[in-house]
Amino acid sequence: MSKNKGKMSQAEINQFLTCAPTGRLGLIIDNEPYIVPVGYVYHEGKIAIHSCTKGKKMDALKSNPRVCFEVDETISDVSMYKSVILQGTSEILDKPETMIPYLQLHIDKYRVHEKFELYMKKPGRKRDEELQAVRIILITPDNISGLKFMRTI
Amino acid sequence: MSKNKGKMSQAEINQFLTCAPTGRLGLIIDNEPYIVPVGYVYHEGKIAIHSCTKGKKMDALKSNPRVCFEVDETISDVSMYKSVILQGTSEILDKPETMIPYLQLHIDKYRVHEKFELYMKKPGRKRDEELQAVRIILITPDNISGLKFMRTI
Repeated sequence: MSKNKGKMSQAEINQFLTCAPTGRLGLIIDNEPYIVPVGYVYHEGKIAIHSCTKGKKMDALKSNPRVCFEVDETISDVSMYKSVILQGTSEILDKPETMIPYLQLHIDKYRVHEKFELYMKKPGRKRDEELQAVRIILITPDNISGLKFMRTI
Repeated sequence: MSKNKGKMSQAEINQFLTCAPTGRLGLIIDNEPYIVPVGYVYHEGKIAIHSCTKGKKMDALKSNPRVCFEVDETISDVSMYKSVILQGTSEILDKPETMIPYLQLHIDKYRVHEKFELYMKKPGRKRDEELQAVRIILITPDNISGLKFMRTI
């Protein structure tokens, strides 16, 4: 059996953060650790998370903006995996003009590609109401590390 | 578009925790949230995580045993997902006789099935040294919740 475990370069970290489908946001709520899975985009070195305006997560971020953010992927036999862990400070964006570029990136990552204003004209969508009901949690990392592992039996 | 979002029953939570391949352990380190991805088994209502004896995670657990544990899985188009989040108290097992049943469960989940004592006789394995170098982090949950989501366009 051989093991190959090592740190990821910044370029590998950028690539993995761009492609990983789901992230996990780590918070402190009532002095206890808490994790919530999130959809997100990685853009210009920051993590942007689509969120609703209210709830446990948003209350926690308002009282303590320090967060951890994690992505990982593992081959089912656990012979290969990658993970990235970062810590940083979050801010909550609520203005349409600052949120729309990040919402566009979410559409580009998770939906059939379409421009935001066209996407919001689809049946059942209500542009202005939705913009009022959404927030972007923007994380600026201050430390970041990536690990990759490969095992051969 | 229709959305179906709901809580998982305890039976669904048990099933998902049994099968999910990777978990994430949430800790507080130096008053900051921290997340680390882990292999684990779910047995008799507890989460057991295979760990080495030293490092950031173990140091943190010794000073604050309160943890969060999270599993999630998402279909690539984000039209279906499940997640379970629990909070609880961790203890560190270090005695071979208490660790071996959990190590057996790890072998059963992540390796070709084999009895622990036979597995440890394979070429390159060193039973006694490995037992000294391993710990089991055992989490007893005090609250647990599961969410399932399905979207149809």
